[in-house]
Amino acid sequence: MTSSELPAGFQFAGVACGIKPSGKPDLSLIVGDDRLVASGVYTQNQVVAAPVEICRSLTPSKRIRAVVTNSGNANACTGRQGALDAAEMCRSVADAISASEAEVLVMSTGIIGKKMPMDRVNAGIKNSVSKLGRDIDDFTAAADAILTTDKERKAECREVQLGEQTIRIAAMAKGAGMISPNLATMLAVVMTDAQLDPQQSQRILREVASKSFNCVSVDGHTSTNDTLLLLSSGASGVRIGDSNEKDFIRALTDLACRLARQLVADGEGATHVMKIRVVGADNDASAATIARTIGASPLVKTAISGGDPNWGRIVSAAGYADAKIHPQQTSLKLAGTEIYHNGVPTDFDAAEVSKAIKAKKEVDLDLFVGDGPGTAIHWASDLTVEYVRFNSEYTT
Amino acid sequence: MTSSELPAGFQFAGVACGIKPSGKPDLSLIVGDDRLVASGVYTQNQVVAAPVEICRSLTPSKRIRAVVTNSGNANACTGRQGALDAAEMCRSVADAISASEAEVLVMSTGIIGKKMPMDRVNAGIKNSVSKLGRDIDDFTAAADAILTTDKERKAECREVQLGEQTIRIAAMAKGAGMISPNLATMLAVVMTDAQLDPQQSQRILREVASKSFNCVSVDGHTSTNDTLLLLSSGASGVRIGDSNEKDFIRALTDLACRLARQLVADGEGATHVMKIRVVGADNDASAATIARTIGASPLVKTAISGGDPNWGRIVSAAGYADAKIHPQQTSLKLAGTEIYHNGVPTDFDAAEVSKAIKAKKEVDLDLFVGDGPGTAIHWASDLTVEYVRFNSEYTT
Repeated sequence: MTSSELPAGFQFAGVACGIKPSGKPDLSLIVGDDRLVASGVYTQNQVVAAPVEICRSLTPSKRIRAVVTNSGNANACTGRQGALDAAEMCRSVADAISASEAEVLVMSTGIIGKKMPMDRVNAGIKNSVSKLGRDIDDFTAAADAILTTDKERKAECREVQLGEQTIRIAAMAKGAGMISPNLATMLAVVMTDAQLDPQQSQRILREVASKSFNCVSVDGHTSTNDTLLLLSSGASGVRIGDSNEKDFIRALTDLACRLARQLVADGEGATHVMKIRVVGADNDASAATIARTIGASPLVKTAISGGDPNWGRIVSAAGYADAKIHPQQTSLKLAGTEIYHNGVPTDFDAAEVSKAIKAKKEVDLDLFVGDGPGTAIHWASDLTVEYVRFNSEYTT
Repeated sequence: MTSSELPAGFQFAGVACGIKPSGKPDLSLIVGDDRLVASGVYTQNQVVAAPVEICRSLTPSKRIRAVVTNSGNANACTGRQGALDAAEMCRSVADAISASEAEVLVMSTGIIGKKMPMDRVNAGIKNSVSKLGRDIDDFTAAADAILTTDKERKAECREVQLGEQTIRIAAMAKGAGMISPNLATMLAVVMTDAQLDPQQSQRILREVASKSFNCVSVDGHTSTNDTLLLLSSGASGVRIGDSNEKDFIRALTDLACRLARQLVADGEGATHVMKIRVVGADNDASAATIARTIGASPLVKTAISGGDPNWGRIVSAAGYADAKIHPQQTSLKLAGTEIYHNGVPTDFDAAEVSKAIKAKKEVDLDLFVGDGPGTAIHWASDLTVEYVRFNSEYTT
């Protein structure tokens, strides 16, 4: 990643303001030189954190100036005080960059149900405004400050050719626990210097999310804070329209998929990513349901973490998914070897398949469930002793 | 448990026939002195083991003579050969007790996708017929021979007073992994010497299952083999009718609940049973959905195993359940202490609540989600390092 690949019209900063006891960066700021077009998709949880309520009410919009994100505290289940605190974060940023409160979006991630330490947050916002910059180091500082239990930074940027014209796209994300379809404790911001209008931005973002962040899971637990934003500055002067929208969506989806897969690979305790491909379902939605059900089964997840070619768990997980399969036409390839064919196991070499699973970070599960037209791909993490250990010791 | 508490009209045997490499008992037989009324409820999985197909086709019935069960091999995903083998088991029992093949039910549990070692199974059937008896030791031998990864026997029997009359009921079950609502790798047989007719038996069994075995989960993985049977010999001479059916159902449900809770307590690696009570949902079905979703969340399960009063995970799991909750009216008691009230955490002593969780084998989670009439109770196991370790090393 280089500074020249970053979209024009954005500045970035990331600082430590003391929300995290570890002293790690925990306040991230993205500011547009001018007003940004912004759209968002949000958690499907009925229990919704205060910052999500604010973002929902403000997007889609063509007048967003900044996005402020804190990590270490989710500002969820914090009642009226939480709503006041989230609004204060927006106001604090607005004051510092001469914008209005309704031009600032806010995201939070971290522990649920703790009051926000607003003195530190406000000081951190001031500090971050003073550090805004356009270099790749500023971008990665902003990306680092949204992480929680993530082991690795999730950030990408690139130049994209649309016919004769060039635009830039960039994205940052955080994940680790509570990752599930329909978003998760996942925050992600996708940025571009292409020109979009608000409704178009919203429509494009939904399409991108359905093929990227909504196709991954770690533990099936949909969080209260999930937010995915698309911000466009228009600074490239390149208008997205009929002629180039398809290519633009393809580039955004590709970038989002890279981040989504990084979320899974960096899932708490994960040692493998399962790439679950379902073919032959009645329709794409059925295929997605089957893939998701397999990815959520603790028995499948533990089998993969142990390098165990236990196809019975995979086939039976498909069988209890809320979507039709045809057991007599069901076949399974695991790590490239067909181990189940039309309802009965093949005479495969279990030790060889086990070795193949263990040797790979990403393991292919290819399941054929009939001769319908439905297909789907889902990425899920495996389940390890480390996940359980980690989540048994989170707050106490 | 004493021999006199066992229902009249039944004989039992359990032997080791060599299906399990460990040499532990793996063939169980229940034989009626006369024809039994039998009903069954079965797995909701679309992938169904051969023995389940046979039981489904034969129940409800008034002419069942025996139930043969093997453990160590599930006879699932075994294609046409599996269907032939399951039928051969019925025929083998029928020949030995002078009944017809269609008068014998069959259940299997164990590893999926392996051919049944029919020589050993047939020899075991002959051996078990020679050992049939009416003593409590015969009953427990039959109960032991259906176990797989269970650490403890699940068997109960008792006398029940219905007005002036006395009947006896007994039940055996096996569980351990793949335990989920709508049954699981769960086999259970409930027996009584009361008189029932087949349709009545079927109706009563559904009602009992909905309040017992369908209210428990270990890992949410519905197996291919789940079977719950109700057998009645009528040997007590006590006819169940309008005057005593309610009391009879209550006694059966109570017995079934005891076994269902034992399944959860003995779930693979489990250190706690969560008793999840949901109150105030729109209706009972909604309450059950919410309770089941909480019980299935890996984040909730790991919090409880770690003694962590992490209410945020519980409330957010309720929030993503496919049933309406009212976040501003949502309150939670954990191990007897209110830690969340109308949408915000209370000022509870986390160390005290943690101590209370750790001190208990059964932990109460009481969740209030609104002022609707719907309530439900669900028992689920917690998730431990041992579950993951065990299931990562199952076949390889």
